[in-house]
Parts: sequence; structure tokens; C-alpha cells
Amino acid sequence: MPYVNIKITKDGTSPEKKAEVIRGVTKLLAEVLGKNPQTTVVVIEEIETDNWGIGGATVTTRRKQGR
Amino acid sequence: MPYVNIKITKDGTSPEKKAEVIRGVTKLLAEVLGKNPQTTVVVIEEIETDNWGIGGATVTTRRKQGR
Amino acid sequence: MPYVNIKITKDGTSPEKKAEVIRGVTKLLAEVLGKNPQTTVVVIEEIETDNWGIGGATVTTRRKQGR
Amino acid sequence: MPYVNIKITKDGTSPEKKAEVIRGVTKLLAEVLGKNPQTTVVVIEEIETDNWGIGGATVTTRRKQGR
Amino acid sequence: MPYVNIKITKDGTSPEKKAEVIRGVTKLLAEVLGKNPQTTVVVIEEIETDNWGIGGATVTTRRKQGR
Amino acid sequence: MPYVNIKITKDGTSPEKKAEVIRGVTKLLAEVLGKNPQTTVVVIEEIETDNWGIGGATVTTRRKQGR
Repeated sequence: MPYVNIKITKDGTSPEKKAEVIRGVTKLLAEVLGKNPQTTVVVIEEIETDNWGIGGATVTTRRKQGR
Repeated sequence: MPYVNIKITKDGTSPEKKAEVIRGVTKLLAEVLGKNPQTTVVVIEEIETDNWGIGGATVTTRRKQGR
Repeated sequence: MPYVNIKITKDGTSPEKKAEVIRGVTKLLAEVLGKNPQTTVVVIEEIETDNWGIGGATVTTRRKQGR
Repeated sequence: MPYVNIKITKDGTSPEKKAEVIRGVTKLLAEVLGKNPQTTVVVIEEIETDNWGIGGATVTTRRKQGR
Repeated sequence: MPYVNIKITKDGTSPEKKAEVIRGVTKLLAEVLGKNPQTTVVVIEEIETDNWGIGGATVTTRRKQGR
Repeated sequence: MPYVNIKITKDGTSPEKKAEVIRGVTKLLAEVLGKNPQTTVVVIEEIETDNWGIGGATVTTRRKQGR
């Protein structure tokens, strides 16, 4: 019954891609750790690039600078 | 001074219902654990059904399948 | 299928008290929001008082000062 | 490589203010703990006042009451 | 630069298994979403069975009952 | 009333350093965002290096390799 929280930047990821991530993580935890896939919960959160910082700068700023 | 984070699917839960959950959780932690309700923080996050997976499938897909 | 994360200070809370909190939160979300209790997940995390700050001071310090 | 999650109420905080918070937290963790700023991640989440409770009431309600 | 948090029950999972989960999740997010593996962060948290509830009961209790 | 969660690797950070981080973050959010320091909550979580992955490898492994 693992709980997985995935945070990514909000970049228009399609429902199909998100479903594929959920399927893949659930399968991985079943195969590697023997966890029951039926009770594995995966929550994806999409974060605005203004709200995500790395290296002391927002992703918005970094992208403008071509980083 | 507990901190409680509640994640639910985004299904149009009314402000009144959310207030009732906040009131109820705060009261429970005061009664069972003796926590000070004045400093108990409760944050509710509502997650799109495309972003919530259980059993390896998104809630969007599960609902379409009548699960 | 809600997911609830409860953070409290580590103060020797008994397994019975923790079970009572889990039961109570699950019941509350079923009654108020109509959530399925069978798939409601509650995770309690107990945090050392050195690692919990409020008002700019750790709980360890606040307790020494009788706050 | 710290990971910092900051939750605040959604009150129209400007991108500039959010960038300043990200810069400040990253600098603080470098100065106090010696953490590498290049791999420090900061995620800000803005929560509706209906979804944030303290003292058993939502921030929406508290503000109406002038608290 | 995704951030992934995985919560599992504390059951003596080996460092090798945890490394395999970290490797697998990082690879999955690179392949499905095109995320840069170099900045993908994965944090695993192991939770005591007394502190994990599902269906209103702790995992400790459920295991005693053979569930 | 912000809530801040800081995750760092478990490396024997002293209570004094942790108190300094809590003080600094609380002050920053008061100065930059005008948040009330009295209700600002900061929780620090220290994660074993076996449980922290970046670039697809655990911090334990990366340190052994001198990265």
C-alpha cells in the first residue's frame, strides 16, 4: 500500500502520459518491493514554473536564460 | 500544533463541507491526543482525477469503467 | 480514496491513540465527504521537537521557556 | 540537495516575491547548513483560503470575522 | 527536475532494493516525460506499521488479523 | 500562517543549526511576504542517505564514488 507523490512542472503533460507514469510506478513497486498494486496510490502534482526553484532561481527565469 | 494534509479528488466539494472536515479533524486531535486546537493547521488539496492513480490506473479511467 | 498525512511532535503517543486517530479521521471523511473508508490511507509522522519550529523557535526551546 | 516545500495561502503573491523567497531559502541553507545551492529545490504551493484551516476554522471564515 | 516522494511501510527493505526503486523511477520519468534524470530527486520514507492506516485500521492490526 | 517542510540528508545537523534554519525561514517569510511569524510552522525532516536519490543513484552511492 505505498503512497507516491510526484511533483513536476506544469507543462501541459497529457492525461495519457500521466496514466503511463502511474502505471509504471505502480508496476515498479510491485516488481522490486513486492507491493500490492491494488492499494498503491500515486498522486501527480503539476507546479507552475514561477513556483519551482532550483539553484536559487525559478524555472521561469532559468528558461528565459536558456538554462 | 499538529499539521494535517488531506488530499482528495477534485469533485466540487463545497466550502461548507471542507470547513466541516477542518473542524472535525481539529476536534479529533484535541480530544484523542490533547493537541491545542488553536495551533492545529489543516490543509486540504484537491487533485484532478487524471492525476490520481490507484491500482495502476487513474481515477478518470476507473470511473469510466464503472469502478 | 483520500490520503491523509498527520504530523505531530514525537511525544511517546501510544499505538492505541494513533489507531484511534486513524479510525476517527477515516470515519470523518466517510461521513462528511462520502469517501470510501476501505481505500482511505492515513499516515502519521512523529517529528522530534528539535525539528519542529513555530513562531521562529523550536518546540524544544519553547518548552524550556514554559511556552 | 535539500528539498523545501512552502505552503502559503493564495493571495496573489507576485512572481518577483516568490523568486525572492526561493533565492532567500536557498541562500539560508547554503550559509547555515553548507548545502549546495545548485541542487537545492524549492517548491511553493498556494492554497485557497477555503482549503486552509487553523484553530478549527478556514482562513476564509477567520478573515470575514476580522481575525 | 521532478521531485518524487515514496512512502512505504518500514519492513527492512534493503539498501539495494531502495537503490533499484530510485533508479527505476528516475528512468521512468526520463522515458515517459522526458525529464532530466540528473536533477530528478527521489526520497523514500519508511513508516512504522503503527503509523500507517488503511480502511480505518493500522497495518499492525491488519497484519495480526491476517489481512 | 505558512507551513514549510524542509528535507535534508541525515548528517548529524546540530539542534543549534536547525534552530537557526527555523529562525531564518520564519524571518524571510515575514520580511518578503508579510507573513505572521507567530503562526509560521517549519518542520525539518532528516532522511537517511540510502533513502535519498538524485541522478538515479542514492546519496550513499554517490558519496562512495566521490560525487
